[in-house]
Amino acid sequence: MKNIVLASKSLDRRKILKGARLPYEVLITNVDEDDFKKENSNPIELVKQLANAKALKAKEKLAQENKDAIIVAADTIVELNGEIIGKAKDEEHAFRILKKLAGRSHKLITGIAVTETYNPKIIIDHDSTSVTFLDLTDKEIWGYIKTGEWQGRAGAYSIRERASLFIKSIQGSSSNVIGLPMNKLYQILRKEFNQFLL
Amino acid sequence: MKNIVLASKSLDRRKILKGARLPYEVLITNVDEDDFKKENSNPIELVKQLANAKALKAKEKLAQENKDAIIVAADTIVELNGEIIGKAKDEEHAFRILKKLAGRSHKLITGIAVTETYNPKIIIDHDSTSVTFLDLTDKEIWGYIKTGEWQGRAGAYSIRERASLFIKSIQGSSSNVIGLPMNKLYQILRKEFNQFLL
Repeated sequence: MKNIVLASKSLDRRKILKGARLPYEVLITNVDEDDFKKENSNPIELVKQLANAKALKAKEKLAQENKDAIIVAADTIVELNGEIIGKAKDEEHAFRILKKLAGRSHKLITGIAVTETYNPKIIIDHDSTSVTFLDLTDKEIWGYIKTGEWQGRAGAYSIRERASLFIKSIQGSSSNVIGLPMNKLYQILRKEFNQFLL
Repeated sequence: MKNIVLASKSLDRRKILKGARLPYEVLITNVDEDDFKKENSNPIELVKQLANAKALKAKEKLAQENKDAIIVAADTIVELNGEIIGKAKDEEHAFRILKKLAGRSHKLITGIAVTETYNPKIIIDHDSTSVTFLDLTDKEIWGYIKTGEWQGRAGAYSIRERASLFIKSIQGSSSNVIGLPMNKLYQILRKEFNQFLL
């Protein structure tokens, strides 16, 4: 299959593609997420617009470099009762986020955009996974924060690391919780771009 | 917290503990799984008995070595409509298993046993996660088998590797799908052995 260009600086997304042994390169686009967040309070629309913006920037760059590739962009947020929760700014902020998430369910929503350098077609979709946390004491939350896993992660946790201890259950795609809904990606590649990975 | 001894030869289980940054050692016990399988057709009872047998063997060995530790043992099977599916013996067998699982839901059931070298208490529990596969063509299944991921895995797939592409959704613990229900483990450690990991 054609090489994938991942328009994302997320290390977790790279790990997922690597785990699936897909050939990929990384291209970091400078999309100002705050501009989109100001204008959009609907979580699904927000992540789809951000994924779209990242994919289009990557497409422009790749066309300038005459490089044909499949472009995959994604953006992930946490939603709790309609409130959009992004990444924590510092430990105190991470504590407030995790305190809110403890003992209840929230949604991980990822917007995904897939296109090719020389193909006008762009597919924009989203996936949503419900995640339920165990109840946690303040001491446990602080203990978790000290691992540093909260940094750079929507919702201030990482399901494949120590947070696995307090994630009671999920409903939906597990790769989506890390930031890249692989089954959604594969369905788009298969149906819309005639790319078969298996 | 006290050191964990993982009574399992599974590399996936080690990866989960490593990912969670838990201190652990591995102790491989020689429990003849076939003996248990002949005697037990109830999937939940089977994995619980196997986890129990592994934990007790490990306990005996550790007592001989005068080594105090928390002992964690587990056993995982796939259940599809009451049928117990274990590991594939060869590629043809892996194909038959994956063909059965494609386009439908099955259960990953893990039995877990937790004890301490010098503690008569042993907690035996299980966790069950429902996993739904996308529809797959025979060609896609063979393509997947060629990755070699089927080897040594209950159900002949590995959710954190290429199989992420065709896993539509899961319901339950995601670490349980890899063979170690971390939230269940943490709840047991917290409640029954007064061990706090956070």
